Amino acid sequence: MSATVWGLGVGPGDPGLVTLRAVEIARRVPVLAYPAPEHGDSLARAIIAPHLSGARSELAIRMPLADAAFPASDIYNAAADAIAAHAEAGREVGVLCLGDPFFYGSFMYLFARLAGRARVEVVPGVTSVSAAAALAGFPLAARGDSLVAIPALLEDREIERRLASADSAAILKLGRHFGRVRALLQRLGLADDARYVARVGLAGERHAPLADVTADEAPYFSLILVHRRRAAWR
Amino acid sequence: MSATVWGLGVGPGDPGLVTLRAVEIARRVPVLAYPAPEHGDSLARAIIAPHLSGARSELAIRMPLADAAFPASDIYNAAADAIAAHAEAGREVGVLCLGDPFFYGSFMYLFARLAGRARVEVVPGVTSVSAAAALAGFPLAARGDSLVAIPALLEDREIERRLASADSAAILKLGRHFGRVRALLQRLGLADDARYVARVGLAGERHAPLADVTADEAPYFSLILVHRRRAAWR
Repeated sequence: MSATVWGLGVGPGDPGLVTLRAVEIARRVPVLAYPAPEHGDSLARAIIAPHLSGARSELAIRMPLADAAFPASDIYNAAADAIAAHAEAGREVGVLCLGDPFFYGSFMYLFARLAGRARVEVVPGVTSVSAAAALAGFPLAARGDSLVAIPALLEDREIERRLASADSAAILKLGRHFGRVRALLQRLGLADDARYVARVGLAGERHAPLADVTADEAPYFSLILVHRRRAAWR
Repeated sequence: MSATVWGLGVGPGDPGLVTLRAVEIARRVPVLAYPAPEHGDSLARAIIAPHLSGARSELAIRMPLADAAFPASDIYNAAADAIAAHAEAGREVGVLCLGDPFFYGSFMYLFARLAGRARVEVVPGVTSVSAAAALAGFPLAARGDSLVAIPALLEDREIERRLASADSAAILKLGRHFGRVRALLQRLGLADDARYVARVGLAGERHAPLADVTADEAPYFSLILVHRRRAAWR
């Protein structure tokens, strides 16, 4: 029976938006793993760092910078092997994950690889969508409303199809897709009430009406919130 | 300049899934408001109660039990007046809200009524969707996937339309709609991989493959998680 591997959602960036459970487990486990860029510091680790004390073994899962094409199978295979080895030796492992592990979280790729090799538990986290809505004062969904999360990397017609059947939407991970997505929303008549939120809880956080944003690119960690109708929560 | 009114997401039920920020503010404010049933205890208050100490003024916003028809305008108007009066007198108010305030949260109705009368800030919370997915080991969305939240009270054709354009879905607030929604998913060939999660983090928590659930009704706080395809995170 292996020790538990924990997928720990640490929220979108603000260390105050970490849950008590994630803090408690991150402080307790002898091994902490986290995604990190090829060079430099891990965002997920920086969020939890103010809550850590004492020593532990750390495993940085270093990735080329995230964008669209992201299988990175070899890196995840090696990380899963290292994590499984710790668990099999009886050491609990906490794997930090930005936002919520099962909502576009990096932990999903490890979850798939650890199945059957270790006991895995997930601690959910606050998503960037909830945090962006809170920052912008933008209610997402009430009563019969439906809310859809749409990755900006999809083609226009795929984004349009998803927008058509929802009452509100979050279009995520804008990056180089920002100018195209804004043009699409303008064409659909959805740009006027839309809000732009970049890097919520991180350095460079910004929120503004979409109409006020003039650049054609945006950070990878940025999103647009859209309402098709705004009545239900009034 | 009024004192701040805080909409505090306390997560779906488990006191460990409250954020550090929500705890800090709930402990600090001199006035705590929360939704409550017509008779009995408030779920939102019970979640935060283990973290409270000392005395404060409390305001229970008592509602007939929540289901579909839910304007309850008079009750929210009166609660907003009482909250605004505290804020105008310089007393910060924390308004507890199950889950995330802007994701089907009761706080939205107060937010709309407090606009222009008080400074309002929202602390996002973990949603029941994230917590249910974590409990069931059910990854929601990765890369180009889109995820839609669909209230079970919608008619079959409206649910079907929303399912058709998403890769995964959470069908929320099942209650008396459960049997009908299950039949719809069976007809669409989506029932086999679906998971049922009831009252996540609350008394009576349960999760099971949808196929194993034989009852025709479910608790109000229950949901079904559905995948249309499951490849992206593998």
